[in-house]
Amino acid sequence: MAVYRAFVTITLKKGVLDSQGKAVASSLHDMGYGKLEEVRVGRYVELALEAASHDEALTMTESICDDLLVNDLIEERRIEVVTGP
Amino acid sequence: MAVYRAFVTITLKKGVLDSQGKAVASSLHDMGYGKLEEVRVGRYVELALEAASHDEALTMTESICDDLLVNDLIEERRIEVVTGP
Repeated sequence: MAVYRAFVTITLKKGVLDSQGKAVASSLHDMGYGKLEEVRVGRYVELALEAASHDEALTMTESICDDLLVNDLIEERRIEVVTGP
Repeated sequence: MAVYRAFVTITLKKGVLDSQGKAVASSLHDMGYGKLEEVRVGRYVELALEAASHDEALTMTESICDDLLVNDLIEERRIEVVTGP
């Protein structure tokens, strides 16, 4: 068993209205950032988990995403798994 | 002028209590994920912006982080800038 770290980035699928991103973009425009074209806001989750292999750590992370972290209807995820605590 | 995309990952500094992460970890333990050691929850922001160069895009993104996105007292940020819409 070794310790792995999984980095999960969760974003809204393209086409899903990102009201939080639009609010941030609007604030930034008001603050003078005229060259800003778009803002999309998502979530980021870091997991530390024990697993026998990189593949097992990845499978466990995908399962955790399915069970709790990600709403597949409107969100998509990117997962990166690295070795080490 | 070209369009750049900036990816900003914002996490709580080490040592700052991550109550949201602890809540997620507790839920996952209750769901049977006993090998999970730690969860840290952060934010993720994607920006699309016009700039004359990669450096200008990075500088603008850092300025946006300072002005609105990141609370430097308790949070840290990682920025990646790439070319393209």
